[in-house]
Amino acid sequence: MNVELEIAVAWGDMDAYAHVNNTVYLRWCESARLKFFESTGIDRLRETTGLGAILAEIACRYKAPVTYPDTVRVSVRLERWSESDFCLRYRLFSQRLQCEVAVVSDRLVAYDYPRLAKAHWPGPIQQQLAARQDPQL
Amino acid sequence: MNVELEIAVAWGDMDAYAHVNNTVYLRWCESARLKFFESTGIDRLRETTGLGAILAEIACRYKAPVTYPDTVRVSVRLERWSESDFCLRYRLFSQRLQCEVAVVSDRLVAYDYPRLAKAHWPGPIQQQLAARQDPQL
Amino acid sequence: MNVELEIAVAWGDMDAYAHVNNTVYLRWCESARLKFFESTGIDRLRETTGLGAILAEIACRYKAPVTYPDTVRVSVRLERWSESDFCLRYRLFSQRLQCEVAVVSDRLVAYDYPRLAKAHWPGPIQQQLAARQDPQL
Amino acid sequence: MNVELEIAVAWGDMDAYAHVNNTVYLRWCESARLKFFESTGIDRLRETTGLGAILAEIACRYKAPVTYPDTVRVSVRLERWSESDFCLRYRLFSQRLQCEVAVVSDRLVAYDYPRLAKAHWPGPIQQQLAARQDPQL
Repeated sequence: MNVELEIAVAWGDMDAYAHVNNTVYLRWCESARLKFFESTGIDRLRETTGLGAILAEIACRYKAPVTYPDTVRVSVRLERWSESDFCLRYRLFSQRLQCEVAVVSDRLVAYDYPRLAKAHWPGPIQQQLAARQDPQL
Repeated sequence: MNVELEIAVAWGDMDAYAHVNNTVYLRWCESARLKFFESTGIDRLRETTGLGAILAEIACRYKAPVTYPDTVRVSVRLERWSESDFCLRYRLFSQRLQCEVAVVSDRLVAYDYPRLAKAHWPGPIQQQLAARQDPQL
Repeated sequence: MNVELEIAVAWGDMDAYAHVNNTVYLRWCESARLKFFESTGIDRLRETTGLGAILAEIACRYKAPVTYPDTVRVSVRLERWSESDFCLRYRLFSQRLQCEVAVVSDRLVAYDYPRLAKAHWPGPIQQQLAARQDPQL
Repeated sequence: MNVELEIAVAWGDMDAYAHVNNTVYLRWCESARLKFFESTGIDRLRETTGLGAILAEIACRYKAPVTYPDTVRVSVRLERWSESDFCLRYRLFSQRLQCEVAVVSDRLVAYDYPRLAKAHWPGPIQQQLAARQDPQL
C-alpha cells in the first residue's frame, strides 16, 4: 500500500557545501505526497468539495548527505489517520549510497477553504485512508 | 521612472561552485518585474479583465559571480512597448563588488486568458507604459 | 541574545496554491541559521579546524499561510547545547498578518570533516554557546 | 551526437500562476548542460587542470506553459565552438502537450580559476567538441 517515487538528483540541488541542500529533501517529500494525494483522490477534493489537505507539521531526520549524481527513492506510508487529519512517513533511500538518507514525518489536516475552518474528510476519502492503513503497525 | 529593488543574497542561493546559481539571477529579475507590474497596474489586470502579461523571451549576460553575503540592487527600465507587448531591461549591481554583475532583457506579451489568445493592452495600461518610456532612449 | 533577520517574501516563493511553499520557510530558517553561525564564529570553523555544524534534525509547525507581498521576521534562539551538538528555535512572524506563521526547531551536530567523524566544539565555540544560552529557559 | 535528458515535472516547480515557473526551464537546461559536460570530460576539467566552463550568456524563448504532471525531454546540441568558448542549444519538449515548450541557447567560456583569466580549451576537450559538432549545421 506504499506509494513510491524515484527522483533523479539534479546538480542544482546541491548548495555551497557541495551536498544536496536540506530543503530539497522536503521538496522530494512534497512530490511523493502529491503521488499519495493522487492515489487517494485527495488531489481532486478541492475542486469538487472545497476541502483540501494542509500541511500542519513536518519533521526530518537527516542520516547521510546526498550528492549529484544519484537517484533517490522516496517511499510513503500512511502512519495513522483520523476523521480530520492523517500522518505520513517518508523513507528516502539513495541508490548510490545504498542506504537510507533521511526519514520524514508530517501531519496533514482537512481544511474547508470556503468556510476557512477545519473540516472532516468526506466518506470516500476516509475509506481510502482506511484501506491504506498499514496492518502491521 | 526606473523601478528599483534591493535583494539580500541568501546563503542558499549558492550552488556547488560556491557562487550564486545562474537561475537565481532570473528569480531576482522576476521579483523586480513584479514591482514593475505593481507600479503600472499590470498585476491587477487579470482579475479585472482576464488579461495578463506572459513572459515570452528572456536573455541574461553574466558579468561577475555573486557570493553570499552581498546585496544586489536590481533596476528595471521599460525599453520599448507596443499595443501588444513590451520589453524590460534589468541591471543587477552588487553592493559588495561595486560593479554590475548581470544585464537581463525580456519581452512580455499581452494575453487574454479567457479567450486563450494574444491581446492588446487596455488603454490605462498603455498610458502607464507611455509615461514610463525613458525619453533618453 | 537572539539573532533576528527580516526577509522580503518573493512572488516566486509561492506555489500553485498561491501560498508561500512549505519548503521556503525552511530556506528562511537556513538564512537565519547562517546569521547565528556568523555571530558565534561557527561559519569560520571549517577552514580553520576542519570542523562544521551539520543539520541532523529539523521540525516545523506551520501556523498560518504566507502570501506575497509580506516581510517575515525570523528570530533565532539557542535552546540547549552540549559539547557535541546544539538546538536552535526559530519563530517566524509575518508583518502583514501580525501573527506568528511558523515555529521551527533543529539540531546541529559538530562534525570533523577530515576524520569523517562526530566531534566536540572547540573551546571558543563552547564559550560563545554558553554566552548565548537564554537564562530564562 | 545529441545529449538527451528526461525530467519529471515536480508539483513544486509550479508558481502562483499554476504553471511551471520560468526559472525552472533554466534549471532543466542546467541539468542537461551537466550531462553534456560529463559526455565531453568538461566536468572533470577543473580538478585536473584548474579550468572550468563558465556560463556567460543564456537566452530562452518560451513557447508553451508546462504544468504538473508532465515529463519534459531536453535535447542539447553543440551549436558552435572555438578554442575559448562554445554555444549549446536546448530544445524542451513536453510529453503531455506533444510540442516544443521552449528553446534555449547559451554560451560557455573557458576560464582558468587559478589565474582568474580566460583560457583555451585543452586539446582533448577541443577534440571532443570537434567530434560533437553537428555536421548538418
